Amino acid sequence: MSREIIEALERVFSAESEIYRNRGFGRRMGFGQHPALLIIDLGYGWTRPDNPFSCEDTDRIIAGVQELLAAGRRCGIPIVYTTTYYQVTEGPNTDMGLWHRKLPIEGLTADSEDVEIDERIAPRAGEHLIVKKMASAFHGTNLTSLLNAAGVDTAIITGVAVAGCVRHTVEDALAEGFRPIVVGECVGDHVPGAVAWNLFDIDTRFGDVESLQTVLGYLGGLAPAERELAAIERS
Amino acid sequence: MSREIIEALERVFSAESEIYRNRGFGRRMGFGQHPALLIIDLGYGWTRPDNPFSCEDTDRIIAGVQELLAAGRRCGIPIVYTTTYYQVTEGPNTDMGLWHRKLPIEGLTADSEDVEIDERIAPRAGEHLIVKKMASAFHGTNLTSLLNAAGVDTAIITGVAVAGCVRHTVEDALAEGFRPIVVGECVGDHVPGAVAWNLFDIDTRFGDVESLQTVLGYLGGLAPAERELAAIERS
Amino acid sequence: MSREIIEALERVFSAESEIYRNRGFGRRMGFGQHPALLIIDLGYGWTRPDNPFSCEDTDRIIAGVQELLAAGRRCGIPIVYTTTYYQVTEGPNTDMGLWHRKLPIEGLTADSEDVEIDERIAPRAGEHLIVKKMASAFHGTNLTSLLNAAGVDTAIITGVAVAGCVRHTVEDALAEGFRPIVVGECVGDHVPGAVAWNLFDIDTRFGDVESLQTVLGYLGGLAPAERELAAIERS
Amino acid sequence: MSREIIEALERVFSAESEIYRNRGFGRRMGFGQHPALLIIDLGYGWTRPDNPFSCEDTDRIIAGVQELLAAGRRCGIPIVYTTTYYQVTEGPNTDMGLWHRKLPIEGLTADSEDVEIDERIAPRAGEHLIVKKMASAFHGTNLTSLLNAAGVDTAIITGVAVAGCVRHTVEDALAEGFRPIVVGECVGDHVPGAVAWNLFDIDTRFGDVESLQTVLGYLGGLAPAERELAAIERS
Repeated sequence: MSREIIEALERVFSAESEIYRNRGFGRRMGFGQHPALLIIDLGYGWTRPDNPFSCEDTDRIIAGVQELLAAGRRCGIPIVYTTTYYQVTEGPNTDMGLWHRKLPIEGLTADSEDVEIDERIAPRAGEHLIVKKMASAFHGTNLTSLLNAAGVDTAIITGVAVAGCVRHTVEDALAEGFRPIVVGECVGDHVPGAVAWNLFDIDTRFGDVESLQTVLGYLGGLAPAERELAAIERS
Repeated sequence: MSREIIEALERVFSAESEIYRNRGFGRRMGFGQHPALLIIDLGYGWTRPDNPFSCEDTDRIIAGVQELLAAGRRCGIPIVYTTTYYQVTEGPNTDMGLWHRKLPIEGLTADSEDVEIDERIAPRAGEHLIVKKMASAFHGTNLTSLLNAAGVDTAIITGVAVAGCVRHTVEDALAEGFRPIVVGECVGDHVPGAVAWNLFDIDTRFGDVESLQTVLGYLGGLAPAERELAAIERS
Repeated sequence: MSREIIEALERVFSAESEIYRNRGFGRRMGFGQHPALLIIDLGYGWTRPDNPFSCEDTDRIIAGVQELLAAGRRCGIPIVYTTTYYQVTEGPNTDMGLWHRKLPIEGLTADSEDVEIDERIAPRAGEHLIVKKMASAFHGTNLTSLLNAAGVDTAIITGVAVAGCVRHTVEDALAEGFRPIVVGECVGDHVPGAVAWNLFDIDTRFGDVESLQTVLGYLGGLAPAERELAAIERS
Repeated sequence: MSREIIEALERVFSAESEIYRNRGFGRRMGFGQHPALLIIDLGYGWTRPDNPFSCEDTDRIIAGVQELLAAGRRCGIPIVYTTTYYQVTEGPNTDMGLWHRKLPIEGLTADSEDVEIDERIAPRAGEHLIVKKMASAFHGTNLTSLLNAAGVDTAIITGVAVAGCVRHTVEDALAEGFRPIVVGECVGDHVPGAVAWNLFDIDTRFGDVESLQTVLGYLGGLAPAERELAAIERS
């Protein structure tokens, strides 16, 4: 985006933030005690160029997610990846629901390399890969049960696309009772403006947008005592 | 079950039916205009003997489902199979939720032949296979969206086990707004008594238990006009 | 029920329990650390006689729930009552969904005394009254969010009717990730047999049926330390 | 917003639309056959000034909703209002979930005039008022069951606030299988920029933003034949 447009957006955010502050919006959600790491739709169809769903800045996103994975794996927290694809993309009995009436999702099929998670952040044994059909990682999936049964209270959210799957996931995480923390450097979209205003809306109304450094600091600070207590509670 | 016990159960059902009739329970749900066929958990772990989840009378169930599949495929109605399995069966971050604390589900893994749909009723292209984690075919799955977007108003339910997955699926189908029709000869369980009293409870409170003949008659009677109108509406 | 029928049912349960034991069913769920008390549909339409939904043994149920309320209130655990009623009971745009096609629910309206919670267990400030439309206390309600945000891991379930709302609530509690504990003396139904076989099914597959004494002992044993830790965690 | 900022936003939208067109985004969802009218959170706390949730342009929104109500009532389509309020706003056992950690929702209580629907669009008998706890009209409510059982395929969405409750409702409507149509003149927010970019995101990815005139034309064109057929189907 041009310097001029970036400045214009920042003026709008600034004016709106003033109004929000006067109203008492944009409080801080804060981190809880038992986080899980969610990695939304970082398949090749999103991380490589020249696809309908290609996103920007994915090298930066992947690098940040790699650091979060290292920290999360050391802590033993639940790690959940999502990808999106369909079993039936023709005819009236499709699992695309109504979404192909807005977006070209009919190319996302099980056998396509587009829906495979980018190997730079490949899932390991003990981690989850949820196949979803709609934008939210919670909608029509077992994500709430999985997180709930594991005693999770905080969802650290990364991935793409901010204006679509990431935002709906954040809104649902909040509604389901999990504190949403969005890692600013680890999310992206197909177009630049959408990242800016969606993170602005999220940080004001739904969850906290935090830096990668802050989140890595939080994960590093999860003391063995809390993790063991959590393990005992869950046994 | 012994003749004596069958007669005792029938006496209980008869006495309870009397009470229900006086109260106005057990009305008939009736068939709608746009059915879908649901086939719950007829994988080898359920249809073959000597497994933890082996069910009784599965040859009869499979034969009936084959007839329903033929009729349903001629009509072009949505056909949805479910199977149940888990990605992580050890440690605190499992997708088994809490259910392994009641049942030996840790054996249901993706690579096990137990979770493959019995080849006698193998799914075809254009049909759906939903992997669920809990009892209900609706819980944590995209089933409602799929049926809703296809304009379905009636769920024809077959499979196993009546006291578990089938019953919870029936209760959820009703709650979600789909008329549940359970095909009496096409459901079963691990133990006999459970079939009798669960079908009795279902027929009184949640959905209609109908014979295979009745349901085949209904599917055969779906006139081309309705199917074409449905197809136009959905375009 | 006659002595003869009770004995017949017990023989069936005994035979089925043998099969379940060999299969490894009926494990114990166990209590968690953070319970909530759920009181299902104990409105006058259920606790008084001569109504379509009148249940048996409600004096015993109410007495037990009073003891659980006293213990739960001392602990400061979340307490949630449900009642069931409809805003529109005529015409095609009803919130009865499809359920009036099975049961006479059209009498359950907001202004009816039938849907008021029995005053012997009246809710207090700080407690919740959820109005539901379907059988499960979780379906179409905010119950999961409420329990999840409060860090609850165990649902102590009481109320009516076992074959309907209580059972569907138990199945959904499990699926949502809350350990279901059903208090045996504090549940009931419109007909006797339904209590026996539904508690049997629940205890085998979904949750633990425990005695009132056991549950009161568990609540009494929730040490101040756990409750304070929970309060700190939730701040 | 200043002319300069409006122009800057329009340049961003224009540039992004170009990218979306090349990718095949922003297809038209189109109207279905069986609509319902949803009116989100037009209570006094939103339509009057000087409240934390006061929105802009509510006179224009109310006037448009009045016209939609007249048309919808003539058609006999389902009409659903929402409002948002809480039973317990203090302590750890609140039904505010986690949302008070972002927004000042603790003022939204049952007895506050803020949560009453603005009398200029007061609900009538036969219409629904859903009390929700979270942003989406679908989350934790009976809305899907209600619409599904009535055979609805299209959700005409109006109300506030676009960046919060309206957008989450649109995303969930799509996910649940209902075509979302947002009436452009009949939605608003607490701040102006948020309306512009959220409608832009919605129209690209989730639903169709249509003018009041277009939607009134659609409702007026629902021929008696379709409405009667729908009534027969639902009987």
